[in-house]
Amino acid sequence: LISKLPNVGTTIFTTMSQLAADTGALNLSQGFPDFDGPEALREAVARHVMAGHNQYAPMTGLPALREQVAAKVADLYRRDVDAAAEVTITPGATQAIFCAIQAAIHPGDEVIVFDPCYDSYEPSVQLAGGVCIHQQLSLSDFRIDWQRLADAITPRTRMIVLNTPHNPSGALIDADDLDRLAALIRERDIYLLSDEVYEHLLFDGREHASVLRHDELYQRAFVISSFGKTYHVTGWKTGYVVAPPMLSVELRKVHQYVSFTGVTPLQWALADFMAAHPEHITELPAFYQAKRDLFCDLLAGSRFSFTRAAGTYFQLADYSAIRPDLDDVAMAEWLTREHGVACIPISVFYQNPPADLRLVRFCFAKREETLRQAAERLCAI
Amino acid sequence: LISKLPNVGTTIFTTMSQLAADTGALNLSQGFPDFDGPEALREAVARHVMAGHNQYAPMTGLPALREQVAAKVADLYRRDVDAAAEVTITPGATQAIFCAIQAAIHPGDEVIVFDPCYDSYEPSVQLAGGVCIHQQLSLSDFRIDWQRLADAITPRTRMIVLNTPHNPSGALIDADDLDRLAALIRERDIYLLSDEVYEHLLFDGREHASVLRHDELYQRAFVISSFGKTYHVTGWKTGYVVAPPMLSVELRKVHQYVSFTGVTPLQWALADFMAAHPEHITELPAFYQAKRDLFCDLLAGSRFSFTRAAGTYFQLADYSAIRPDLDDVAMAEWLTREHGVACIPISVFYQNPPADLRLVRFCFAKREETLRQAAERLCAI
Ligand SMILES: CSCCC(=O)C(=O)O
Ligand SMILES: CSCCC(=O)C(=O)O
Repeated sequence: LISKLPNVGTTIFTTMSQLAADTGALNLSQGFPDFDGPEALREAVARHVMAGHNQYAPMTGLPALREQVAAKVADLYRRDVDAAAEVTITPGATQAIFCAIQAAIHPGDEVIVFDPCYDSYEPSVQLAGGVCIHQQLSLSDFRIDWQRLADAITPRTRMIVLNTPHNPSGALIDADDLDRLAALIRERDIYLLSDEVYEHLLFDGREHASVLRHDELYQRAFVISSFGKTYHVTGWKTGYVVAPPMLSVELRKVHQYVSFTGVTPLQWALADFMAAHPEHITELPAFYQAKRDLFCDLLAGSRFSFTRAAGTYFQLADYSAIRPDLDDVAMAEWLTREHGVACIPISVFYQNPPADLRLVRFCFAKREETLRQAAERLCAI
Repeated sequence: LISKLPNVGTTIFTTMSQLAADTGALNLSQGFPDFDGPEALREAVARHVMAGHNQYAPMTGLPALREQVAAKVADLYRRDVDAAAEVTITPGATQAIFCAIQAAIHPGDEVIVFDPCYDSYEPSVQLAGGVCIHQQLSLSDFRIDWQRLADAITPRTRMIVLNTPHNPSGALIDADDLDRLAALIRERDIYLLSDEVYEHLLFDGREHASVLRHDELYQRAFVISSFGKTYHVTGWKTGYVVAPPMLSVELRKVHQYVSFTGVTPLQWALADFMAAHPEHITELPAFYQAKRDLFCDLLAGSRFSFTRAAGTYFQLADYSAIRPDLDDVAMAEWLTREHGVACIPISVFYQNPPADLRLVRFCFAKREETLRQAAERLCAI
């Protein structure tokens, strides 16, 4: 068999979680909580599984769950979306990303992504026959260089992938950025994929500049989010796409044959829980900010240097003062093996990692006890 | 947006299930049971969700579930497969099909499918940039014409899609067919996708000629099955692929970026249930044969003519004696609207449906009461 993805190995998430398991290290690598989803949500799954909600859901997702998403979008982002025509439930946000790319990208099309970026974008584009054009975010603040972006746009540019809050840096796009982007793609045949899976994780009172807030951009956007991230149940692999009707039609054609539909009892449970517990979302920023602050306060006593993440549940840390001799992959392995804390090297999120990159990513979606223990180990280095 | 799948509309399954719901017809169209999965299996989900098995499973699937699949394959098909290297759990068999096709098919490759065939094969091939070459099965017994298949093979043929037991006809491939196929593709660079989602549904003592039984064919095969079909929980969207290590490596590269992994608590529950209830699988043929026979015995009193399905939970029925003036799409709609029984027209599974096709498909994965009521309505026509 001639490989379709010759350059792809095992994802860094699998590699590091496996190394953490093998070495008994605290796993602050792959992005998932070490605590559980809300009890009422899990009980709802038990209830629906026992009540017989176990056959195919409608292809676009359970209407009740799509309605909840539409209600949330109206409430948070002041946009009225039609749950029937603009919301599609998918088996995970990764799959939403894949399907949106398949729906929009034809062979030879160019897709602009900003490095460091989530590692599924490029293979998804490759499988569609497209080409990823990598732009680097500034290493100091992970913002987009608008002039360089303008220069990178060609007649073959068909999509730009945004990710805010940004994994791995936690950086945010703001409303001005959206306006700049709108000006840039106006009159051009360019679509947006906006990966907003950390939409509820913004700290210090910051507001999420969702593409859903922006009339002009939304008309060309696939906006993606994740129930797994929001409700602490990453293993449920349930996400969604909000896109205008014309784009949703094309997305659904792909989704229909990639998976047909998502898991029925999970969709029922999420719909119930969203209706009964709207406070879950509003309490999330404080919940994770407390974790970020606990971790960062403790880490302040270490030789790592960092700026607190503005969003996501990831904290970058610069280790130049500790082991400048190691690249970040070697550093992540060293931290895991020698100091019992697994993390993610961020060079793997680059096409061409900057040579002077000395950053690793810690996931702080962990219990207080885990964070304290990890920080203690990191401070001892 | 220029459509990637310009010829795709809503699947017939969605259309007919919706029409059944709108008209209050008995839904014998889309293939799912109107009864529930085993209570112990559903209880296991409740248990695992409450016990905190809600974060990412390993990318290739939960080891315990892969082991169960490997044990089943050893037991039923006398093949030792390595659960770590040859079994991959996927979010549904449809997705398994999609990923296998993406992994093997390069732009311009040809994939031979046998019409009538499941409607996801062609769009999956199209999205990979390949071309589907449609061969028709004989309308009398739905067997492969080996000479015509031999003639259809070209240097660009890269894959042949088998489906046994066959949806929608219930026809089976036998061991001789597998040998013929092996002879045909020997020395050629051709892979097999073997869609065996109805592997446990064979009647009257027939044996499933799984590609897993065939040493030579297995070396080039992606063998796909479905926990949803086998355990009466189609809404769980959990399936698997068994493929030799080299093919599994490539399949997993795609799977890793299409979905990353399947749903954790469902995988735990399936692993528990398979271990505790091996009799579920061995009792399935009798369970569904009783349904087939009930339905067919009653339908014998109608003006439909049919040969009992050898496998699957679908029964084809010829309606020439009733409404020869209607094509099957019109017939399915007429049966749904006028007689309260929804079914599936099979012309939608053809690239070029035979003009004289007068067959509709009924799903008999239904409670006795549903089957009796449906048969009564069909006999009254
Ligand atoms: C699908 S595993 C990746 C989890 C994640 O989002 C991350 O760690 O960045
Ligand atoms: C994914 S809906 C299709 C169900 C099915 O397998 C069928 O009805 O043929």
